[in-house]
Amino acid sequence: MVQESPDYLRELIRKTRSLTNKPFGVGIVLAFPHKENLRCVLEEKVAILQLYWGQVEKDVVFEAHQAGVKVVPQIGSFEEAKHAVDAGVDAIIVQGHEAGGHVIGQEALTALVPRVVDLVASRGIPVIAAGGIVDERGYVAALALGAQGVCLGTRFLATEESYAHPEYKKKVVEMSETEYTNVYGRARWPGAPQRVLKTPFFMEWRNLPNHENESNQPVIGHSTIHGMEKEIRRFAGTVPNKTTTGDIKSMVMYAGEGVGLINEILPAAQVVKRLVEGAQTLIQQHFKSSV
Amino acid sequence: MVQESPDYLRELIRKTRSLTNKPFGVGIVLAFPHKENLRCVLEEKVAILQLYWGQVEKDVVFEAHQAGVKVVPQIGSFEEAKHAVDAGVDAIIVQGHEAGGHVIGQEALTALVPRVVDLVASRGIPVIAAGGIVDERGYVAALALGAQGVCLGTRFLATEESYAHPEYKKKVVEMSETEYTNVYGRARWPGAPQRVLKTPFFMEWRNLPNHENESNQPVIGHSTIHGMEKEIRRFAGTVPNKTTTGDIKSMVMYAGEGVGLINEILPAAQVVKRLVEGAQTLIQQHFKSSV
Repeated sequence: MVQESPDYLRELIRKTRSLTNKPFGVGIVLAFPHKENLRCVLEEKVAILQLYWGQVEKDVVFEAHQAGVKVVPQIGSFEEAKHAVDAGVDAIIVQGHEAGGHVIGQEALTALVPRVVDLVASRGIPVIAAGGIVDERGYVAALALGAQGVCLGTRFLATEESYAHPEYKKKVVEMSETEYTNVYGRARWPGAPQRVLKTPFFMEWRNLPNHENESNQPVIGHSTIHGMEKEIRRFAGTVPNKTTTGDIKSMVMYAGEGVGLINEILPAAQVVKRLVEGAQTLIQQHFKSSV
Repeated sequence: MVQESPDYLRELIRKTRSLTNKPFGVGIVLAFPHKENLRCVLEEKVAILQLYWGQVEKDVVFEAHQAGVKVVPQIGSFEEAKHAVDAGVDAIIVQGHEAGGHVIGQEALTALVPRVVDLVASRGIPVIAAGGIVDERGYVAALALGAQGVCLGTRFLATEESYAHPEYKKKVVEMSETEYTNVYGRARWPGAPQRVLKTPFFMEWRNLPNHENESNQPVIGHSTIHGMEKEIRRFAGTVPNKTTTGDIKSMVMYAGEGVGLINEILPAAQVVKRLVEGAQTLIQQHFKSSV
């Protein structure tokens, strides 16, 4: 886990603002020191503060609302959703176990989304589904489960605009299987399992004993991350990005269960267009006439 | 795992036939000796032969078709679906990892159903989704993913007609959380993990070392299963049914991830009625006007 400095984060926010006048959000991982970056997000009055991997506290929501910032946590269980609702959040992202990367989702979307939807039904809190959603079918399924929107991760990884290393994008297109593991990133983020592509490197090391981790492993590459030069050791939790050099194939490659539905690298706008138009066609063909 | 004798199976088939003139199916677990029961199903020309936990062989499908019996395997991965299609099956049940009982589903329905749907698209093989589906939301979501039907397990457990022990039904209504484990049934069915309710007994024993199993455990109850009296030892894979006596609370209670959406015991017909009418209403309200 490499974190942005607050100055770097501020620079990114301002740069984004110079490129669009649409509202956008900033995500913060609560499992790591985050006070300064949190303050920066509120000072910059970013539209949405997205929170992940940690309990959402009432006072954070209160401060955000004072600054005119909406709070949207990503949760992975019904209990977490309850805490978030009690803290006064504005929307909830429900992550299913099918998600890629560091997976907080403990159950699949099928049953978890409707439970959270029932929980917030009377409060007007929108629910957004995340995990395993790639195309219009997952999108419309999420709507049927009661979600009002969807989050896509792996699908955007395989876009032209994505900052991922070309080799990583290629693997997302070529490969179809993932596994939930804790082989990577144990040293700096213990207790945070992840879903990864079943690359040859992973398949060789998937049974790595729990006490082994990157801390005493060889350096296998280098990356520029958030403007800083970083060494990447074997078993690090750091994915290869556009700047990464070294043994790319041995680096972690996060992906959600939907990876088997991704067969090409597309422009990001095309992904969104297909999702929306595809959903309209699906609803038209599947539901308008059938019932 | 307690198996029916072929004579008992034949008796059940004939009794069922005396109660309805609708087509029905018989499920066979391929992981266990099944030749005689398979022959019985084909001799009795039951409408559907459902297969589970094992590779579907071409010759079995051929024999079934000769007898006018359709073959519908339940699969848990894309690879398994490919084998089934190659064997010439008539439909495929796709089980998601969210399913209860012995879980062969390796991925959630969100991504696995569309992949299998794409696989069989040109062959006219219907796909049926199983796992975590409880109400109209899961049903319509499955349809959106491309399935043509759904299988419900846990929901029918909590029906008046279900043969489950009343204490087990009660727990299905009261409890909301499940876990994927291999604590139960290891002695007689190793390598077959299951999803169970997080009962106090399970939570106490969930870390049972792999080498421990029911074979040297005390008898905690008795059951009549398929017409035979059986002892139930601790950590057996046998759920408590209507006839079971003894320490019911310490017996395995299978349930899918959808258990948190089940809040009452209903007549089975009511479950079906709500599912169908609920789906019609959902589609009407959600999709007919929106796009």
